[in-house]
Amino acid sequence: MMKLYYATGTCALASHIALEEAGAEYSTVRINFATTEQRSPEYLAINPKGRVPSLVTERGILTETPAMLAFIAQSFPQAKLAPIDDPFGFAEVQAFNSYLCSTVHVAHAHKTRGPRWVDDPAAMEAMKRKVPQTMGDCFALIESKMFRGPWVMGETYTICDPYLFTIAQWLEGDSVDPARFPKVKAHRDRMSERAAVRKVLAEEKG
Amino acid sequence: MMKLYYATGTCALASHIALEEAGAEYSTVRINFATTEQRSPEYLAINPKGRVPSLVTERGILTETPAMLAFIAQSFPQAKLAPIDDPFGFAEVQAFNSYLCSTVHVAHAHKTRGPRWVDDPAAMEAMKRKVPQTMGDCFALIESKMFRGPWVMGETYTICDPYLFTIAQWLEGDSVDPARFPKVKAHRDRMSERAAVRKVLAEEKG
Repeated sequence: MMKLYYATGTCALASHIALEEAGAEYSTVRINFATTEQRSPEYLAINPKGRVPSLVTERGILTETPAMLAFIAQSFPQAKLAPIDDPFGFAEVQAFNSYLCSTVHVAHAHKTRGPRWVDDPAAMEAMKRKVPQTMGDCFALIESKMFRGPWVMGETYTICDPYLFTIAQWLEGDSVDPARFPKVKAHRDRMSERAAVRKVLAEEKG
Repeated sequence: MMKLYYATGTCALASHIALEEAGAEYSTVRINFATTEQRSPEYLAINPKGRVPSLVTERGILTETPAMLAFIAQSFPQAKLAPIDDPFGFAEVQAFNSYLCSTVHVAHAHKTRGPRWVDDPAAMEAMKRKVPQTMGDCFALIESKMFRGPWVMGETYTICDPYLFTIAQWLEGDSVDPARFPKVKAHRDRMSERAAVRKVLAEEKG
């Protein structure tokens, strides 16, 4: 049985939902960011990067959301969470997830993770000030060029959907009005009605 | 035939090498960052993110290095550039590439791409100052925990290798001494001897 290490309010939600959608047998362990448990020797032994999510499998430990999402899709092919046998279709899924990971999540992280990139408190404040613009720009691109609807990739639900849903949760906290992006907003509502999403959110908030 | 849009000195080198290693038939188009050609209307029509690489395929256009590398591995299975039929092995490859994309490349980008995240020139300088530390920390983790040798994943050459090679080229420019990381340095030397790498470097420098 797999074990997912997560923290509330983080991108680990995407993998958590994907495991549930896949019908996987898994357990969860919540890491407490408030006490910087992610930097404890115990957790660093699991993930030396000191981040979540981490997924313990029978073969070893996996990290990095895009890799874990593709792993879940490949490991549970009957759930049809990605076009894993179509290199181009799969690459489109991965390109979307890579954009979320390396551009959108990074834009968001400049609000509270400034010490990753600067030591100067004034520079951290400068970073925070631009987050509404950068996150707004990212979601404007998603809304206008990338999102197909009703799901990210069109008619078929994929591993892009829980990941977009996860990051879209951060808009209000980043001072971006979700109403600017009606397709993404409708997607959030659509996601919120799924049984897997309701179950996972209830657990993470419990 | 596929067409790769690249710029010299960028992460597009990884996909360029992978195409060559795969034995793909492809052409290349060089985008001139010095004249911000990546922001021209013509290029934005290809990649609205205004970045390289972009890969034009017969099915459509792909972006994002990790997605393109996996696409190349899946499209040319005879080249054996990733364990595409082993979900865990493939996820390990993808996790490594995701770390390069979302953490290491992002650390590097704070040297010259500060305007992505701040408007204040003093904050951009603060970002630049920390790049030697953040890039050094990333490569210390790669050297001590992630790199197996002689290739990234061990005995078998994969799509992780051209990507690590590409980003390791940036160490000197980021004021990090490559001699601190002997395994990564030996990997760079090993890569430099490969026919595909020599051919691609000669073209990009030509």
